[in-house]
Amino acid sequence: MIYLDYNATTPVEQEVMAVMLPYFTEFYGNAASRTHLLGWDAKEGVDKARKQIANLIQVQSKEIVFTSGATESVNLALKGLFEERLGHEKNHIITLRTEHKAVLDTCDYLEKYRGAKITYLDVDTKGNLDLNALENAIHKETLLVSIMYVNNETGLIHPIQKIAEICKNKEVLFFSDTTQAVGKMEVYPKELGIDVMVFSSHKIYGPKGVGALYIKDGLQIQEQQNGGQHERKRRSGTLNVPAIVGFGKAAEIAKNRFADDGRKLKIQRDFLENKLLSSLDNVIVNGAVENRMPHISNLLFKNIIAEDLMLALSTHVALSSGSACNSSLVLPSHVLKAMHLSDDDALSSIRFSLGRQTTDKDIEVVVQKIVEVVKRLKG
Amino acid sequence: MIYLDYNATTPVEQEVMAVMLPYFTEFYGNAASRTHLLGWDAKEGVDKARKQIANLIQVQSKEIVFTSGATESVNLALKGLFEERLGHEKNHIITLRTEHKAVLDTCDYLEKYRGAKITYLDVDTKGNLDLNALENAIHKETLLVSIMYVNNETGLIHPIQKIAEICKNKEVLFFSDTTQAVGKMEVYPKELGIDVMVFSSHKIYGPKGVGALYIKDGLQIQEQQNGGQHERKRRSGTLNVPAIVGFGKAAEIAKNRFADDGRKLKIQRDFLENKLLSSLDNVIVNGAVENRMPHISNLLFKNIIAEDLMLALSTHVALSSGSACNSSLVLPSHVLKAMHLSDDDALSSIRFSLGRQTTDKDIEVVVQKIVEVVKRLKG
Repeated sequence: MIYLDYNATTPVEQEVMAVMLPYFTEFYGNAASRTHLLGWDAKEGVDKARKQIANLIQVQSKEIVFTSGATESVNLALKGLFEERLGHEKNHIITLRTEHKAVLDTCDYLEKYRGAKITYLDVDTKGNLDLNALENAIHKETLLVSIMYVNNETGLIHPIQKIAEICKNKEVLFFSDTTQAVGKMEVYPKELGIDVMVFSSHKIYGPKGVGALYIKDGLQIQEQQNGGQHERKRRSGTLNVPAIVGFGKAAEIAKNRFADDGRKLKIQRDFLENKLLSSLDNVIVNGAVENRMPHISNLLFKNIIAEDLMLALSTHVALSSGSACNSSLVLPSHVLKAMHLSDDDALSSIRFSLGRQTTDKDIEVVVQKIVEVVKRLKG
Repeated sequence: MIYLDYNATTPVEQEVMAVMLPYFTEFYGNAASRTHLLGWDAKEGVDKARKQIANLIQVQSKEIVFTSGATESVNLALKGLFEERLGHEKNHIITLRTEHKAVLDTCDYLEKYRGAKITYLDVDTKGNLDLNALENAIHKETLLVSIMYVNNETGLIHPIQKIAEICKNKEVLFFSDTTQAVGKMEVYPKELGIDVMVFSSHKIYGPKGVGALYIKDGLQIQEQQNGGQHERKRRSGTLNVPAIVGFGKAAEIAKNRFADDGRKLKIQRDFLENKLLSSLDNVIVNGAVENRMPHISNLLFKNIIAEDLMLALSTHVALSSGSACNSSLVLPSHVLKAMHLSDDDALSSIRFSLGRQTTDKDIEVVVQKIVEVVKRLKG
C-alpha cells in the first residue's frame, strides 16, 4: 500500500509510540490527581509535552491549551472568543470561503444560534485572497478575522504576516487554523502576529485524539467544555495523558526535521506532478504553484471521475479528493468550487499529499499506475 | 505502589492495548477517508467498537456517539438538548447538588450564557435525593432532569428507574451521567427509561481520550462541536480510531466480568472498611452503605487532615479526597458538603476506590499503613 493521504492523517512514529506506551499501563494516573505519585507522574508527562509543543512554535507553555484535536480547538477559539466578547458589541467575524469545515461549520453555528454576522471572503482561481477586500470588510463591529495558514486541499500558503498586520492596524483579533502548517514549516505566532491559533497531533506523526490551542498570554477566552476547570479554566475534562505525551514527542521530532523533510518532499512532489503533466493530456494543477507547501499537489484530470480513478487504485494507493465527506454522497470540494472550478472539474480532482515515509520508488509506481488507469478510463 | 484511585482512572488492560496498537502504526487511516483501504480498515475498527459498546448497554449501534470523554459527552447532552429544544419554550433543568462537576459546571454555563433556569435538588446526609421533591420541581417549562446513576465520590446508586418513571409521567427528558456505573453493573437505558446517557473508556480499563453518548433513536440533539458532520451530524472531528477500538474491547471485557469483579471487590472493600472502623476511633462511613457500588468506600477520619494522611502515603498508596481539584487550593468536596458534612469533616474524608488489580494483600497493607499514619498524626 502506497499512502499519499498524509494530509488526512499520518502514521504514528515509532519514537512517539515508545514514549507514549508506558502512560497507558504504568504511569496511568489522572494528571489532576494531586495526592499521589501516579498523578504526579502523569502531570510531569503533560508538563514536558506542553514545553515541547510551546518550543515548536516559540511560545510560553502557559499559552498552550490541550484539546481533543484541531476541530475542538477551532470550536473553542471561535466560540470562546465570540462569547467572551459578546458584551463588547462586536459580533462580526470575517473568514474565507476556502477554510476547513471546522471553521465554516462553526461560523454557521455562530450565525444561526448566537447572533454572529459572518463575512465570507472570496478567493481567485488560484485560491488567493484579496488583502484589500479583507481590509475593506473590517468595520467597527468586527471581532475577529479567521484565516488559515495553509489550505489543506491545495497546500496554498496564505500571507499570514500581512493579514496579521491588517488585523493589528484595525484592532481586530486574528485567529489562524495552522493545522496544515505547524510541524511542516516555521510557524511562530508571536513573530507572525497571530493572537490565537490551533493545530493537531495526528497531522504531524503523533496520535489522534489530541490537539492544541495557542492563546496569547492575557487574552481571555470563554471555556466551551465545562466541568472541573482543567487547563487553567480554558478546557475541562480528564487530560488524555498518553496522547499528550506522544504529541509532545511528535512536536520535538518535527522541529528537528521539517526543513529536511520539506526539501525531500518538494523533489518528490515536483517529480510526481511533472511526470503526470507530461504523460497525460488535460492534467491541470489546481491552485497557485508558488507559495505552496512542498508535499501537496492537487490535480485536475479533465473528464475523469476522480472517484473512479481513486477506487480503481484503492487497495494499492491511498488518495483522496481532498473533501472530507462522510456521507455516501460524493460532493464536489467547497475549496475547489470557491476557486471557480465547475462541479465536474472539482469532481475530477485529486489531492496527493506526500509524507515522511514516501519513497522515490512509491512516486514512480503511483505515476505509472495513474497513467494506466487514466488511459483505461478514457479508452 | 498500591493503587486505590480507580474512580479517577484505571490502567489500560493488556488485551485492550493489543487490539489498539496496530491502529497507531499500521491501520492508521482516517475513518472518514472513503476512497482507500486504510480508511476502510479504520472505519471497520470503529464500527466493531460501536457494536461492542452498544452491546454492553443493549442499544443499537446508531444510538452511540463517540466523543473525547465523559466531560465532552455531558456537555453535548445538556447543551445539545437545551439548544435543540429552545424553540419549545422549555428552559428549565433539574439536577442534583451531588452531580459531577461536568454536569454542575455545564448547568452554570447554561444559566449564565443561555438563559437556562436550573433547580438543584438537595440530598440527605446519606446522599439520597427525595423523589417527591423531584416530582414537585417539575413544571411546564421543565426540559430535562439530569441525575447520575452512581455518585463518583460515595458510590451511592440512585433509584434511576423510579426517576425515569417520574420523568416519563411528567413528559420531561431524562439524562443520566452513568460514567461510574457502565461496565461495573447492568446499565440498560431502554429498560431503565433513560433518554440520553454518557460514559467513558478510561474508567473501565480502556484508554483515556474517548467517551460515548447514548441518545435514544429519534431524539434530536444539536451538535456542539462543528466541522464536518461526523457521527451522523452529532459530533464533528476526526475519530480517535485507536482509542475507540480500545474502548470497544474494554466494553466487551467489562461485559464478561463485571459481575465477578463486583463480588471480589465487595469482599475487599468490606474488609477494608470493617478493619479500619474496628482499628481506629472516630472513623465514619460517608453516605449510605446500602445501595452502594461494591468497590467504593468514602471514609471520614475525624480530626485528621485527609491531605496529610494521603501525602504521608503518596509514594506507596494512591488515594484521593474524591474532589477533582486542579488548583493548588484544597477545597472541601461539594458532594460531602451537600450531604451536610462540615468543611472540616469533608477535608477529613478519603475516597478508597478499588479495582481489578487490587489484591487482598494490598488491602491488608493499606489498612496497616493507614492505622499507623493516623495514630502518628494524632499523637
